[in-house]
Amino acid sequence: MQMGIPLKTTHTIRVRFNETDALGIVWHGNYIKYFEDGREAFGREFNISYLDIKKQGYATPIVSTETNHKLPLQFGDIAFVETTFVNHRAAKLVFKYSIKNENGSVVCTGETTQVFTNLKTGEMSFTLPEFFKNWKLKHKLINA
Amino acid sequence: MQMGIPLKTTHTIRVRFNETDALGIVWHGNYIKYFEDGREAFGREFNISYLDIKKQGYATPIVSTETNHKLPLQFGDIAFVETTFVNHRAAKLVFKYSIKNENGSVVCTGETTQVFTNLKTGEMSFTLPEFFKNWKLKHKLINA
Amino acid sequence: MQMGIPLKTTHTIRVRFNETDALGIVWHGNYIKYFEDGREAFGREFNISYLDIKKQGYATPIVSTETNHKLPLQFGDIAFVETTFVNHRAAKLVFKYSIKNENGSVVCTGETTQVFTNLKTGEMSFTLPEFFKNWKLKHKLINA
Amino acid sequence: MQMGIPLKTTHTIRVRFNETDALGIVWHGNYIKYFEDGREAFGREFNISYLDIKKQGYATPIVSTETNHKLPLQFGDIAFVETTFVNHRAAKLVFKYSIKNENGSVVCTGETTQVFTNLKTGEMSFTLPEFFKNWKLKHKLINA
Repeated sequence: MQMGIPLKTTHTIRVRFNETDALGIVWHGNYIKYFEDGREAFGREFNISYLDIKKQGYATPIVSTETNHKLPLQFGDIAFVETTFVNHRAAKLVFKYSIKNENGSVVCTGETTQVFTNLKTGEMSFTLPEFFKNWKLKHKLINA
Repeated sequence: MQMGIPLKTTHTIRVRFNETDALGIVWHGNYIKYFEDGREAFGREFNISYLDIKKQGYATPIVSTETNHKLPLQFGDIAFVETTFVNHRAAKLVFKYSIKNENGSVVCTGETTQVFTNLKTGEMSFTLPEFFKNWKLKHKLINA
Repeated sequence: MQMGIPLKTTHTIRVRFNETDALGIVWHGNYIKYFEDGREAFGREFNISYLDIKKQGYATPIVSTETNHKLPLQFGDIAFVETTFVNHRAAKLVFKYSIKNENGSVVCTGETTQVFTNLKTGEMSFTLPEFFKNWKLKHKLINA
Repeated sequence: MQMGIPLKTTHTIRVRFNETDALGIVWHGNYIKYFEDGREAFGREFNISYLDIKKQGYATPIVSTETNHKLPLQFGDIAFVETTFVNHRAAKLVFKYSIKNENGSVVCTGETTQVFTNLKTGEMSFTLPEFFKNWKLKHKLINA
């Protein structure tokens, strides 16, 4: 189903002092924030950010996350969050993440899955919301 | 205006690993969370918690905070947040905090001020909301 | 390899206001904090907490996490974090988590994997540290 | 004692979704993070960042903070943290902060005070550390 070049954005972060822990490195749970930073940077670039989706009447709550930690980051480090759209048939938003340090080494990889819930009814959408279908068409992720 | 014994609650916290920073101590900004823990424990004891106030149609956004740090706390430390209601004439919720470690030494003191905003109109209340006046009467903080 | 009754602890949490997000529910990344709360409660009960392990000369950095979100939690909710030790042959600490709300419904499940790194050398241990082997023996998780 | 033009840096932030709370606005405690962002941006510009100071053998723990909240910020908002060095005679680092939204309205002001502690002895410095005296001289904040 994946066609053409995958949609991808790289977002630069700088590790905050308050994101470190007593081991002197970024606390593992904070990578979930970096994934959110990356996902929102992707959303702003491809017009599918949290706020874009909200305008269409949907929220996209996270239903699963996965992180894999390879190397630590420390206070003051610059890192690059590469966020890639994973094209699924189902009514889901799936992103893969790869965070690299300044040497180009991968420090963390991961994945998140979101579903679409109607902001009015609160119900989950089991089919692709119309706006999302159009978005996929526009980006050649489905056939017309 | 302060009459009788001040209303006060002591709430016990245990320092989370994720609340520490690269200096090996609790990151200073996390004391604002401990103040919130103490304020909510006070609220539950005296029926003036965030959710109690919400039921009355009000939110109580914080308009100012102050922290004074005397000693550090480390991961695993137990600490005691003493929250005292400060009785003001104005339509404000003011609390003072004193956090002590297991030796009884003060590690942090502070204060927060909240105002009342109407949940429907979003407007700030310049007079004591009726429910708050009744609450003060009940606790002998104002004269009938 | 799993023998006898699995080691398990249930830890009660109360959702903090600052753990919620603009959707009015606990921000998904904060479940990683609840897992840490559960893991540390397990550690205190079975003498294998972060601080117990540190005394043995080891740190146990997280190398992977997984969360699955079923239902939301809101400010003020009480929830129960059930943490179960998963017995692996390798030099790893693996825990499974199941968080239930007050109705007994599962709100979130997940898993974390930690490795042992020597606090002096910083190196990862590829074999079971002696103290961990003894801990497993004591809890009948390996044969003598 | 204040001479010449005050040293000042403006740092741009974008509100993260995970910095909001159930009221739909940035949780008040997160402004302490924005102050830290501003202070570090100042530090990088004027070579007095946390890491610069660490190289000189000192840590600068926060001993007090103050925040004053005027207007809310919401997810996705861009804001500007203006950090101004406050020149004190004592061995202290004092900064004032003013955070403005995109309309130029002040949303939050505040102040932090830090002391110098020797990284080797852990002791607080009651006199200006040599490197800090030189820094002040360089920036014409004291007379030679």
